[in-house]
Amino acid sequence: MIKSALMNWHKTTLETPTRGKGLHDITETIRAQLRDWGVQEGMCFLFLPHTSASLVVSENWDPTARADLETFMERLIPERDTWYTHDLEGPDDATSHIRAMLTDTSLTIPVDDVNLSLGTWQGIYIFEHRSRPHRRNVLMRVLSVE
Amino acid sequence: MIKSALMNWHKTTLETPTRGKGLHDITETIRAQLRDWGVQEGMCFLFLPHTSASLVVSENWDPTARADLETFMERLIPERDTWYTHDLEGPDDATSHIRAMLTDTSLTIPVDDVNLSLGTWQGIYIFEHRSRPHRRNVLMRVLSVE
Amino acid sequence: MIKSALMNWHKTTLETPTRGKGLHDITETIRAQLRDWGVQEGMCFLFLPHTSASLVVSENWDPTARADLETFMERLIPERDTWYTHDLEGPDDATSHIRAMLTDTSLTIPVDDVNLSLGTWQGIYIFEHRSRPHRRNVLMRVLSVE
Repeated sequence: MIKSALMNWHKTTLETPTRGKGLHDITETIRAQLRDWGVQEGMCFLFLPHTSASLVVSENWDPTARADLETFMERLIPERDTWYTHDLEGPDDATSHIRAMLTDTSLTIPVDDVNLSLGTWQGIYIFEHRSRPHRRNVLMRVLSVE
Repeated sequence: MIKSALMNWHKTTLETPTRGKGLHDITETIRAQLRDWGVQEGMCFLFLPHTSASLVVSENWDPTARADLETFMERLIPERDTWYTHDLEGPDDATSHIRAMLTDTSLTIPVDDVNLSLGTWQGIYIFEHRSRPHRRNVLMRVLSVE
Repeated sequence: MIKSALMNWHKTTLETPTRGKGLHDITETIRAQLRDWGVQEGMCFLFLPHTSASLVVSENWDPTARADLETFMERLIPERDTWYTHDLEGPDDATSHIRAMLTDTSLTIPVDDVNLSLGTWQGIYIFEHRSRPHRRNVLMRVLSVE
């Protein structure tokens, strides 16, 4: 399908509290914003302006899937390791940056029919790598095609 | 180079069979679609709506490079590990989601001269993390600049 | 905020020397290019056409944070391992492709007020995975909204 396009630009910042380490679902927040704007079709760009949290698209149905992702990170990059040199803010300092590097800072997701074109089992998550709760921002930009 | 731009929007879904675990080259499929559309210049957005496969840009020349990527994943996230809790669909269930998390769900690649602006040695791959063959979809969106 | 948009397209290739393995800051180079073009607002797309280097957004303040990212990669994917089969170009051959797979080839970053909308502590880096210095290209594309 090809379409000679009139484009619109939408932007906002979604402020999201996290309860400390783990995956926090933001799928519905993003979908609600698309409906508010009435974006029929286009591209959704998400950017996380933080270095100790990241973005992940993963399984949205069974909580054990997410638990395994969290456990994997704890096992691969354990806080008890003693080789880290960047520990000014505690044992979750270097580990947070490493975990963020292995996941995503930006995501691009198609929009169709006023909805994210995710797979049936996909959800969008902020992966908080800090032990303590934080307020995280997600920069949301949408290029809409009309 | 700056260009006051007329934009067009192209979209399709590329259905691709995989033969089970490993890297499956989709570079030529994407290039053929760009030629079909006659997209001179712009941006190509790829999105994989699956949680147990992912997208990877990697070496396209020597098959041993890809074999090593596959071996690395088997070694880092082995199916024989016993700590996974998400195993409803078998030993490749949790491991698939973890491997997907460490690679990509979305890619953005420049288009110039009716071609992907990949490096000489770069190819685009679906990384299938499931043991059994699957049919995978790649959502392809192109913003063309005229 | 919604805006009926006139779009412009900007493109260039930033050639960047690396001094061998490690993180090389390219944030200011990208910012300077945005100022040269006078891009008020839009989306910045970065793509690295190489298979043995990658792009990373990470901590820009404390050099120990970057040192830990580099050490982590050396520990997770050590050159002394003997299972790699892709070693035509030396012990940094397979390891480079694996390290690139775990990080990013493409990044999408919002632009606002003629600047990248990075977090306070975020910088953009080329992660060189080869031991020897290389000249690396970053394909920079900007969709500007006016």
